[in-house]
Amino acid sequence: MVRALIFDVFGTVVDWRGSITREVRSLASEKGIRLNAGKFANDWRAGYQPAMQRVRQGDLPWLNIDALHRLILNELKQKYKLDCLSEDETDTLNRVWHRLKPWPDSVRGLKKLKHQFTISPLSNGNFSLLNNMAKHSGLPWDCIISAELFGHYKPDPETYLGACKLLDLDPAQVMLCAAHKDDLLAARGCGLKTAFIKRPREHSPSVRRDLSTDARFNYNADNITDLASQLS
Amino acid sequence: MVRALIFDVFGTVVDWRGSITREVRSLASEKGIRLNAGKFANDWRAGYQPAMQRVRQGDLPWLNIDALHRLILNELKQKYKLDCLSEDETDTLNRVWHRLKPWPDSVRGLKKLKHQFTISPLSNGNFSLLNNMAKHSGLPWDCIISAELFGHYKPDPETYLGACKLLDLDPAQVMLCAAHKDDLLAARGCGLKTAFIKRPREHSPSVRRDLSTDARFNYNADNITDLASQLS
Repeated sequence: MVRALIFDVFGTVVDWRGSITREVRSLASEKGIRLNAGKFANDWRAGYQPAMQRVRQGDLPWLNIDALHRLILNELKQKYKLDCLSEDETDTLNRVWHRLKPWPDSVRGLKKLKHQFTISPLSNGNFSLLNNMAKHSGLPWDCIISAELFGHYKPDPETYLGACKLLDLDPAQVMLCAAHKDDLLAARGCGLKTAFIKRPREHSPSVRRDLSTDARFNYNADNITDLASQLS
Repeated sequence: MVRALIFDVFGTVVDWRGSITREVRSLASEKGIRLNAGKFANDWRAGYQPAMQRVRQGDLPWLNIDALHRLILNELKQKYKLDCLSEDETDTLNRVWHRLKPWPDSVRGLKKLKHQFTISPLSNGNFSLLNNMAKHSGLPWDCIISAELFGHYKPDPETYLGACKLLDLDPAQVMLCAAHKDDLLAARGCGLKTAFIKRPREHSPSVRRDLSTDARFNYNADNITDLASQLS
């Protein structure tokens, strides 16, 4: 019997691509710079897995996601000729990840699920990022669980099992809800229940992704309100 | 400029003495046992500081508060002739700390403060205890910060500074709100702002306590709604 739902955030609950594209486009226009804001967003996100891998391999010390995003942004500033940004402006841009907008169904679905379950993020985003994002967008979490608390990034098992331990629940009482099959499979390997949330618009239409209903997961849902209906 | 309010919980937000007295009285009556439920509650709470001290001194390994409460309860079961309780019943009783009732002003005051600040517990209570208590009583925290996350109990500095670090705020941007002056003074020593919440009914009337307004603290308030008024 599932007692807690833990959610991947970037892509599952919030639309990183749309949010970053809009904010970068507006900043570029303000500065009179021509750039492809959608490509900028994709490049930023694409730098994230390799950056975590550098930490896992020991090339970098443990860094939270704000710091990893900033390392990647420093490179993108050169590539996209954004050197004109001051330190303050760069920091503000880096914190766009704290201001990502939820998908249209997210807040409503989470509010519904909160009546029945403990709901929390389980994200590689740092604690303050997740807290600021929730305040900014009204995400009604019961608590904030960040990979930062465990000194490990998903999909390391320490994150899924660490969340269960904090909640004092068996893995089978906890369900990871995510738009990414690799994340779900890692959680499943740790004994958690899993719900696949389809997010066809997370990536550009040109990116091919496996959005198929998948019997390996306990639930397959079109969005978070659909998941709430299936669970009610 | 304060951005986050972190709250002591036992005694400050919830009424441990009244909640435990009521539940133990009802359990004793059900079992046909005569005992002084108020004294039982006081004894349980009184065992808490010495138990934490045993962990600090290395007589016990790190234990969360559920485990410390259970150690004390095992002794109280003998003292109060509650040996008849089964393991399940004892565990349910131990989790009364997850079901403590808020003071009448707490939920309303916190809801008001939540519009203006990040609000979180900073309690020695373990993460799951604080989460269950919030679900049970509608405490509208933005996030849950437990001493458990730092492997230290208050008033160790690691707890206050750990909370600031998680929130990515300077200590001067964070205010501890508590009914206990020793807790507040320790936070003040770490650079946090402080608000003293007077809770004259936390202990039995026979217990003498310093409830005086104190200029060492940034705010002195009669309760949490009063604090919200002073801060608005």
